[in-house]
Amino acid sequence: MTDDFVRKYGPWAFVAGASMGIGAALSREAARRGLNVLMLARGEDQLAHTAHSVRDEFDVEVRTLAADLADPAIARLVEEATADLEVGLFVYNAAVAPAGRFLDVDLDKQLLSVTVNCATPVTLCHLLAPPMVARGRGGIALVSSNGGIAGAVNFSTYNAGKAFEWILAETLWTELAESGVDVTTILVGATSSPNYNAFKETLDPGLCGRRDSDDPLDRARARLMHPNPPEQVATALYDQLGSGPVCWADPDDEFVSKKCLAMPRDEAVALWRGVQMTSTRVPDRQAL
Amino acid sequence: MTDDFVRKYGPWAFVAGASMGIGAALSREAARRGLNVLMLARGEDQLAHTAHSVRDEFDVEVRTLAADLADPAIARLVEEATADLEVGLFVYNAAVAPAGRFLDVDLDKQLLSVTVNCATPVTLCHLLAPPMVARGRGGIALVSSNGGIAGAVNFSTYNAGKAFEWILAETLWTELAESGVDVTTILVGATSSPNYNAFKETLDPGLCGRRDSDDPLDRARARLMHPNPPEQVATALYDQLGSGPVCWADPDDEFVSKKCLAMPRDEAVALWRGVQMTSTRVPDRQAL
Repeated sequence: MTDDFVRKYGPWAFVAGASMGIGAALSREAARRGLNVLMLARGEDQLAHTAHSVRDEFDVEVRTLAADLADPAIARLVEEATADLEVGLFVYNAAVAPAGRFLDVDLDKQLLSVTVNCATPVTLCHLLAPPMVARGRGGIALVSSNGGIAGAVNFSTYNAGKAFEWILAETLWTELAESGVDVTTILVGATSSPNYNAFKETLDPGLCGRRDSDDPLDRARARLMHPNPPEQVATALYDQLGSGPVCWADPDDEFVSKKCLAMPRDEAVALWRGVQMTSTRVPDRQAL
Repeated sequence: MTDDFVRKYGPWAFVAGASMGIGAALSREAARRGLNVLMLARGEDQLAHTAHSVRDEFDVEVRTLAADLADPAIARLVEEATADLEVGLFVYNAAVAPAGRFLDVDLDKQLLSVTVNCATPVTLCHLLAPPMVARGRGGIALVSSNGGIAGAVNFSTYNAGKAFEWILAETLWTELAESGVDVTTILVGATSSPNYNAFKETLDPGLCGRRDSDDPLDRARARLMHPNPPEQVATALYDQLGSGPVCWADPDDEFVSKKCLAMPRDEAVALWRGVQMTSTRVPDRQAL
């Protein structure tokens, strides 16, 4: 399987948003499958630390690019960093998630999230796909979220940006298939990371439903208390790259997401609002 | 009904993307319902012409703002133009739709579409919603598209941007409800406009299915040959503002869209790909 993965997506993976959590796991899993990895993140120290640990563990080359994905010069920075590399796998994992009511979050932060969640993935796909098409092989994965399939309180531009990535990935999936380039998006649910674990502390366990429930709200709430390890997302994504436009790392996420898409839209939004209310962090001012 | 409309959404409507097609109809219908209208578009002559005809027909005030929605100063321009107005209804109808394969369309055009379809609606909602919230009444409508619910060939960033608006509107719908501000998005299908009518000439009538079919591809293709008048979109949008986060102007669009959301994603994308193939304008290089 490793040989096949390298043949399809090697020799270099480029992971944007690579220093922690899911991005670190995506970098590590790419290395485990035999790819060299170029890791991009903003914070130089954390990036160097994670890159060092990947380099130590696997017999592959690891490079780093400390850069801000909101930098207007991002295309040039990535072009320079990849000039001598054959990037066969591009993973866009970065996101900006301004939490809070739309009107309570500064406009600058909302627009930053549009840049990082929408504009930059467009820019980097436009830069990195043509050489893959020319070679007739490669892979592109946009890490989206179950949050992208409905509006919900407190994550206005984040959810909207995740919807953008989901639908963009679907178009790229069908347009690039003829060139042998695989595209997918993964709709991620609760995943252990320093940020998520702090958020988890604010959950009300009394509200956190049952995983075996047929009620998608119950099931979605139960997932909050049982975040997956980032490694599960990385493995699921690479296993399913090439199998369709959308994938999930967890059967409960897939269940909730499909139920939600089949609902009337007011009920879908109410469902995610109900999930949100499981947390005491951001008070909900409106009755469900 | 007119009095009620004015009480909820008056005295001024602001329509962004107002000079032609759906935007002109939205301006005219707002005036018919008793609102004064501030009309924004880029092309000064066409805007003045349309504004003149609205002013002639209805006993309301009509102002114009010739501005580019991609202008980085757009917030200031709109702020100045609305400084002495009580805007109770904000309609965002503008869109940039670069047609063609993702890799064949210049990056600049793709990023322009992200600005106009994602960033600017965020900016203008952030500017125009707070006074509505303070007054405890108002309406915001984002004009989206059935194209936003799935990827499809040739409309990569357009469809993704329409998904952004759809999900953003859903969040605003639930967040602003408590303040008495109504938000909705309309998922528009084929609508008569100079652009659409030129496109319609490229359709293969042999492929254009039946409107009474239970097959959503058939039904979607049939809609292409029967575009609705822009007035139908305007009436449907204002009639349904206040009734839920998402609405449609045509029962066939609603049928197709709900079927599509309930499908596996590869089938949803294939459906829109099938609709696209009805046109001979942009050749499809891949077998379905």
